[in-house]
Parts: sequence; C-alpha cells; structure tokens
Amino acid sequence: MKKIDKVRVIPLGGLNEIGKNLTLIECGKDIIAVDCGLAFPDEEMPGVDYVIPDMQYIVKNKDRFRAIFITHGHEDHIGAIPYLLRDINVPIYGTRLTLGIIQNKLREFRLDKEADLVEVRAGQTVDLDTLSVEFIHVNHSIADASALAIHTPCGTILHMGDFKIDVTPVDGEMIDLTRIGELGKEGVMLLMMESTNVERPGFAMSELKVRDSLRNIFSRASSQRIIIATFASNVHRVQTIIDLAADFNRKVAVSGRSMVTVIEVARQLGYMSIPDHVLIDIEDVNNYPPEKVVIITTGSQGEPMSALYRMAYSDHKVVEINNRDLVIISATAIPGNEKLVNRVVNELFRSGAEVVYESLAEVHVSGHACQEELKLIFGLARPKFFIPVHGEYRHLKRHESLALSLGIPQENIIVADIGNIVEVCSDDIRTVGTVPAGRVLVDGLGVGDVGNVVLRDRKHLSQDGLIMIVAVVDEYTQTVMPEPEVISRGFVYAKENENIVEKIKDITVKVIGRCASDGYDEWAFNAKARLKDEVSKYVSEQTKRKPMIIPVIKVI
Amino acid sequence: MKKIDKVRVIPLGGLNEIGKNLTLIECGKDIIAVDCGLAFPDEEMPGVDYVIPDMQYIVKNKDRFRAIFITHGHEDHIGAIPYLLRDINVPIYGTRLTLGIIQNKLREFRLDKEADLVEVRAGQTVDLDTLSVEFIHVNHSIADASALAIHTPCGTILHMGDFKIDVTPVDGEMIDLTRIGELGKEGVMLLMMESTNVERPGFAMSELKVRDSLRNIFSRASSQRIIIATFASNVHRVQTIIDLAADFNRKVAVSGRSMVTVIEVARQLGYMSIPDHVLIDIEDVNNYPPEKVVIITTGSQGEPMSALYRMAYSDHKVVEINNRDLVIISATAIPGNEKLVNRVVNELFRSGAEVVYESLAEVHVSGHACQEELKLIFGLARPKFFIPVHGEYRHLKRHESLALSLGIPQENIIVADIGNIVEVCSDDIRTVGTVPAGRVLVDGLGVGDVGNVVLRDRKHLSQDGLIMIVAVVDEYTQTVMPEPEVISRGFVYAKENENIVEKIKDITVKVIGRCASDGYDEWAFNAKARLKDEVSKYVSEQTKRKPMIIPVIKVI
Repeated sequence: MKKIDKVRVIPLGGLNEIGKNLTLIECGKDIIAVDCGLAFPDEEMPGVDYVIPDMQYIVKNKDRFRAIFITHGHEDHIGAIPYLLRDINVPIYGTRLTLGIIQNKLREFRLDKEADLVEVRAGQTVDLDTLSVEFIHVNHSIADASALAIHTPCGTILHMGDFKIDVTPVDGEMIDLTRIGELGKEGVMLLMMESTNVERPGFAMSELKVRDSLRNIFSRASSQRIIIATFASNVHRVQTIIDLAADFNRKVAVSGRSMVTVIEVARQLGYMSIPDHVLIDIEDVNNYPPEKVVIITTGSQGEPMSALYRMAYSDHKVVEINNRDLVIISATAIPGNEKLVNRVVNELFRSGAEVVYESLAEVHVSGHACQEELKLIFGLARPKFFIPVHGEYRHLKRHESLALSLGIPQENIIVADIGNIVEVCSDDIRTVGTVPAGRVLVDGLGVGDVGNVVLRDRKHLSQDGLIMIVAVVDEYTQTVMPEPEVISRGFVYAKENENIVEKIKDITVKVIGRCASDGYDEWAFNAKARLKDEVSKYVSEQTKRKPMIIPVIKVI
Repeated sequence: MKKIDKVRVIPLGGLNEIGKNLTLIECGKDIIAVDCGLAFPDEEMPGVDYVIPDMQYIVKNKDRFRAIFITHGHEDHIGAIPYLLRDINVPIYGTRLTLGIIQNKLREFRLDKEADLVEVRAGQTVDLDTLSVEFIHVNHSIADASALAIHTPCGTILHMGDFKIDVTPVDGEMIDLTRIGELGKEGVMLLMMESTNVERPGFAMSELKVRDSLRNIFSRASSQRIIIATFASNVHRVQTIIDLAADFNRKVAVSGRSMVTVIEVARQLGYMSIPDHVLIDIEDVNNYPPEKVVIITTGSQGEPMSALYRMAYSDHKVVEINNRDLVIISATAIPGNEKLVNRVVNELFRSGAEVVYESLAEVHVSGHACQEELKLIFGLARPKFFIPVHGEYRHLKRHESLALSLGIPQENIIVADIGNIVEVCSDDIRTVGTVPAGRVLVDGLGVGDVGNVVLRDRKHLSQDGLIMIVAVVDEYTQTVMPEPEVISRGFVYAKENENIVEKIKDITVKVIGRCASDGYDEWAFNAKARLKDEVSKYVSEQTKRKPMIIPVIKVI
C-alpha cells in the first residue's frame, strides 16, 4: 500500500456563507464527510425552499466515499442528507439524539428503511481503513453535540463542529476540554473551528442563566398563562421549561409539529424526562385555569403559519391570546427574520398579552463560542495549522486575525472557499486546486431545476409585474383579428390603466402591420421582439416601471 | 368667535409603524401638520419605491389647513411634502438646514418655485390665528433639529420630534432642556414623544464618542487610504470627518449623489465649514497618495448602486478597493438592511480592504433618546397627558409602561393609532372618532395605483412564477388550432419541463373540447376557470409548486 503522506480537506459548504455545512476529508483511497447540511434561502432566491451544497464531486467519487459523520442534529448540519442518500448509501455516524432527528427526517423522505445509521457515544472512535474518527462531547444549543478528532497517518484534524463552553450546562456535562487538551499535547495537525460569534468579545452565557431568568418570570406570573416559544431542537431549553412548569404546578401543552416531534424523539431516546401527569394535550388546554398552564410552541422566528404566528393572528385552533397571557420568546431572531419576529410581537401585544423577548430579559443565550472561548480552544489544542470555518468572509477573516494574535503564523492559516482542495501534512498546508462546488436550490419537489434565469424572472416579476399581449393574426390578410388582448398582473389596478391598455393595443396592431408587410418568413418572430421593445419603452415613459412584457402572436 | 375649549390631535402616520410621520393638530378653525414624511417599503411590498400617508383628510379640509411645521430634514419627516404640495400649497415652516433639504427635494419635483418655505430659528415662535408654534433646539443625527411647543387656548402640546440629549454635541449646542423645563413649570397639557429607543436602557452616547473613535483610527491608519460611509444627512458626522482629514493632512473627496448634494446645501447655508484646499474632486482621487486621501461616501446601508456598493463590487468609476484601503462604516444597519450591509462588508474584505464597522469600534451612535433621556424629558416637561409616538405597537406600549412607572396615571395616556381623533383639553383626553388613514404606495410615477391585489400578484409571481396558456379556437369546429401554446416564466428551466408542457397542452385541448361541447354561450369563460383549476392541480402534484396560471382562449 502506498504511504499516505498527505490529507486533503475539501469544504463543500459553510465557508463564505451561513449554513449548508459539509466538509470532505480525503485520506488515501477514502473520503468521508463531516456534516451534510442545508441553508435557508435569502431574499435573492424568491420561492426557493432550501439550498443544499453541490455534491457532484461526492457522486463522481462514489466508490471512494465511505461515511458521513454528523456533529449534531441542526438542519444546517443534517438537512442535505436525504438528497445525498438518494444517490449514495453509506453509513451515517452520530450520537443517539442526532441520529434520532435524522431518522425522523429520513422517514419524511421514505429513506429511513435503507439508511445505515450507526450510533456513536462521545469518547468513542470509529475506525475506517486509513483513518479513525473520535467523537468529543461539546456544549451547544442542542443536546448530544460533538467535535470530531480525525486521526490520519499524517496527523490529527480537530473539527470543532458548532460549540460553546458551558461550565454549568443544564444536562450536567461540560464540553470535554480535557480531551481537547490531551489531543493538543499529542499534537493537533489542523484545527477547523466555527466562526459564528468571532465578532463577540468575552464568553457566551451559560444556559443556566436562561433557567434563572425563566424561574423569575414564572415566580411573578402567578395569575397568567405562560406561552413560551423556542427552537424545537433546543432539548435542554425545553426540558428546563417542563421542569419549571412542574415546580410551579403547571401543566404543559405542546403546539407546533416540529416541537411535538422533537419532544417525542428526545423522550424515546432518554434525552428528556417528563414527570408524570405534567403533559396535557393541546386540545385540552382550555379545560385548565390559565395560571395552571404552560404552552411550549414553535414560531420563535415569527415564521408565518407556525403555531405562535397563528396564535398571534387569532388563527390557532385552540389557543386564543388574551390579557391573561404572558408570552416569552426564548430565542434570538436569526439575521433576516427580525421583521417577522417584530410583527408577531406587535400582534401579541395588540391582543393584550404581556410579551417578554430578548431585549427585555435574559431569556436566551447563544449556542456559539465567543472570542474568549475560541481562544481557549486554541490554547488547549495548540494546532499547527488552522482553517476557520462556518462563517461569511468577514467572520473567517476575523477568525484569522484572532489566530494571528495568538501566535499562529500567517502561512499556517488558510482562509478557504467552498470547492477548494486544501492539502495538509505534518509540515505543510496549501491549496492545490478546486472541485465543483456551489448551491443547488430546492423548490417543492424540484432539486436543481431552479437556476439563475428562473430567479431573475421571479425577481423581475415581483418588482413590476407583467403585461401579456396576445394577438391572433390571419395568415392571408395579415391583420389582427378581432383585436389584441392585453392582460396585466402585478402592474397597476386594471381600472387605472385603461388608457395604457388601449395604447398598447394600438402599438401592437401597428407593429404587426409593419413587420408582416416586411414579407420575411420570420416576421412574427421579429414582431415579437419589436413589440416587446416598443411596449416596454412606452410603459416606462408613462409609469417609470419596467414590467415583464410577454408578447404572443398566433398566425392562423 | 366661539371659544376653543378642545384641541384635536390626529396622527396620520408614525404610529404602529416606522416612518411616514405626520400629525395634525386641529384648533378651532385651523389645522396644522407636524412633519410630512415617507416610509420605506418592506418585503411585503415588492417593487414599491416609497410609502406615504393617506392624506385625503387634509385635502378634504383644504380650506382650514394652514401650515406644515417640520421638525427636521430626514425623509421620514419631509418625504411626503411634494405629494401634499401638489394638492395644497400652504407655508412650510422649518429651520434653515431643514428648509434647504426640502428645497432641494422640491426642485426634483419641480415644485420649488411655488413653495412657500418660511425659515424659523430655534427659540422663535410662529403665530397663527388660534395657536402659535415655538421651535426648540434638540440634538439628533441631523443638524438643526427641533421639538415644537404648540401653544393653544387649551394648553401647550409639546411634540419632541426625533431627539436625543447630547451634552457634548459636535456643533456645540445642547438640546434646550431649560426651555423644556420652563414649559413644564408653565404647564404642558400634552407630551408627544418618540419611542424609537424606548427598549434601550441608559443614555445614547454622544456624537463626541464617534469623533474620538475616528481620531484613533485616523492615527493608526498612517499608510492607508480611508473611505468612510455614513448617512448623507448627518452633517455633524461629515463635518467631523472633514475636520479630522484636515488635521491629518488628508484631502477629502466625496462620492454619491445625496452626499454631494447635502454637503453643498449644508455649506451654502453655513452648517458646514470646509478649510481651504481640503476638498478635491472624486475624479482626481488617484492623483494623490492613498495615505493622503479620505473618501466620504454614501452606501452605509449597503444599498445596491450606492457609491460604496459600487466600490465593493469593482463597479465604481474611480475608486478601486485594494489592500491599502481602510473602510469605515459609520452607521448602523436599519432593521431589514442587515444582509445588504453584510454582503458589502464581505465584498470589501475580499478586495483586501480592512473594514471597520459597528461591532468592531464605536464608529456610530444612535440619534434617538434611550430610556434615561425619555425619563428626563418627562421630569422636565411634567405633562398632564401623554401620547407615545414614532414606533411600532410594542414600542408605544413600552413607552406607556415607562410613563406609568413615572407616575402618569393610566387614564392620562393614550396609545393611539393612525386616523384616531384624540380630543384634549386641560382636564381630559379621549379618542372621539376616526378619519381615513393608511398607506399610499408610490411606484415609479404612480401614486396609489398599486394596491393589495397588485401586491398579492407580485408576491405570487415571485414565489413560483407563472404559466401562460394561449389557445386559439375555431368558432365553428370548436377545435384548438393549431395547438395551444404554453409559456412559463420563473417556474423551472424550460428544458426541464418539456413533459409538463406537453401534458398541459393535452389538458387544454381536453378541457376546451369538454366545455365547448356544453353548448353554453359563455363556454370560453367556463373553460378558462376549469383550465386554471386543472392545470394548477396537475402542476402542484408534479412539482409541489403553485405558479400563477393565466389561460387565454381566443375564439375566432
């Protein structure tokens, strides 16, 4: 067997972007993936449901692709798994809760039967031919999260996943800093670490802080119904709320599909313990006095159609908000969602509820390491090389600065991009080439069938709408019969544009007359192009708008 | 003359929303407006340029409408003036800089000639028949901002405009707290105060803080070109930057239309003093060494096509970003603009620039009063009644709580909505009715011709695009000739949907055959409705998408 003197690291997602985390490690003949996540579309991608990484490189190297290792169960780390499994069935390694969430997701895609999910506990190591992968417990806003130490013949790669350092986590287990320190002593060749909170100084607050804040709120809310919205996957947070409810003699009802599902999975797998008789069905919630109830709900991001959104807009089948309600939003708005959240908060206030959100009380803490935590990991792992991951370019650059300030030499740091092939060995790191990488858009059942042209058209349509012109032309007399039809959508009120419509009809008849008399065989084709130009020009002069113009000429 | 024993306050904008501030005060036969601003559209209003208040109540009461009083020159306080002036020409009172900015705006609308702009200095009072309006100097992120004390026969209404308390403002004039205190002693009947920062504890920082931060940055940037983006209207900030440039022996170039205009206006009116030989033309910027130049630019909100955006995307006619550039974003992202700003920051980093923004250094301070400042105004003005203004519902409610905590009785506070008629006199305040109020959308040259149907269509089109079906049917044989045409935009790549297109054609021929043979006169009308349903259903099953279906049937 050829000696392996170099390992390749190929990020396919998560760099220069938020989400769709996916990194390949190539060691000799073997390729493994760390995470396989999706991203959420931004306003430049109207109508798109999800964005997944371009995975053609994996498919092309199918026979060498050995396994997927998942650090934790958040969508941006697991969401693209079903799309990869359609093409390639390899074992998926993860901790118990992570696999429970994946299993659930695969069921929706009817891929759960054939999937090969292999449970790993923190501290355990998975041995493949050329490399082995060790799971290390970390704290994060979901239970059972891990960092991965990938031991290769060239040295160890430490991939931190998403993490924070929580000395007082609510499940009692602190991140395994000792093991990270031991790895540091043994020698870490390459550190890959998330950059989400690299702009924040200090330390992320402990989840315990949230418990204290919530306890205070429960204490003073003795005559109110309590409704708490949080991320379904934040199992510890949900457990905290249930424990507090039990302490304060309140029943707990759960609303929102993902919340119900996650609690179910977490209970089954032993990640959540719910005292007897605490849980009640959401349908029964009105049978209890308000001050005896806590409702845990989805919708902390203000998502339209989520349970909290429905409650706010009086559209929930059971829960009607009133002035005896105290609503707590135990989450922070993800960038881009601020307005949605604000809208829901305003609506809740309007229904008379008291609303507690982040700017009012410490009812949420971040799950990502801030500067001092990142520095601590550098200090413990003492890596030779460093690749900052999980962040936009500015985050990666600031993470680079942080590493430089800690004495890591510039030439030992690579600020990479997706698709880069980074080759690393014990004494060198460099970018040696690229593989195809990018984004694949998922819209409804379609994967990859929405591209730039479609998005451009959607954006164009959303700005000024469209004007359609249908003209039927007699092949022999070359006249429009009976008269052109003009249809607009998203342009202006039909009534207000009667003059414009009449003028467009005039233009149409004239243009067709002119083009038809040219005598070219292709006259109708020409006429369409001219019609588009002339109508566009006219409409823009009249209204300063640029609707999409779609001419249809049928020669009969 | 009938004794005036009540005054009416009618907010037409700025409550339960951010922007389009406009409040009417009705006193006997006279009506005046405080401010006349616009709002920027949110993502629910695609393609819309601006939102202005519904001003039909003013137009209807034209003969009683006496004057517009403007507190300061920001768009959300002056932007709707041209739309009102088209219908009604009344005097506009404001301070010198405010009027300079308005004059400039009116010029664009060719309304500057007939407009009657009347300059008022802080401390002066404008007397109308039944009431008088006193201008009081306040600090804000634009120079020459005022609060207004409206003296009526029933008592004084103090409208704070937008303000903060800056003990060390860069132009040397602190808000006139003394006058507010005097008014308090004389008796303030009603206080109307902005709620923008009511969620923030403490005091807003002084503009001086920004000067210190910038000075530090200038000191260490001795080998870099400095590019600073800020709000054009923040005259003090711009002056600070120019002063620093002069101190550090740098030339100043200005980029971006609004920045050029505002500096021009501010200079002419004496609000800005620029030392000789400091200003250079942006075209000449490359004739100077980088370390001898400061460029002041628009684009602090990441606006596409702004000067900074162009620089970031290598599309600026003169300025090319490189690794000797230090870019400072001296502004905060307005909610909703975060992603735009992030994108520009990433792009600047990518071009090699060092980028300094809010999370890195104190290069921006808010122009709005925080909790302690609001409390101070309550303490000085000691109002009998209070209406919180300028804010979403949650802001207004929290401002109400703040007032309650200071001992203002619940019944003396009105959380109003736009269109409410609030009647106030020395011993009573109450809502007595409503007038028409709402939003009018401005899109291109159209004012009010884009309504809910148009917006709904634009949103629909942006989500899944459209499918158009054109069928020409022979009146006698009732057959489609030659075959239906199917056109899609914003749906999927044309190539990928060939099967779908064929199937839609089949459905079309079948539906038309069925409906035509029904024999109703209105068969084509029926056929369109059915076609829409059946194609919609088919497409949704195949793709889980819901494009807009537009059938056109021409019977010839």
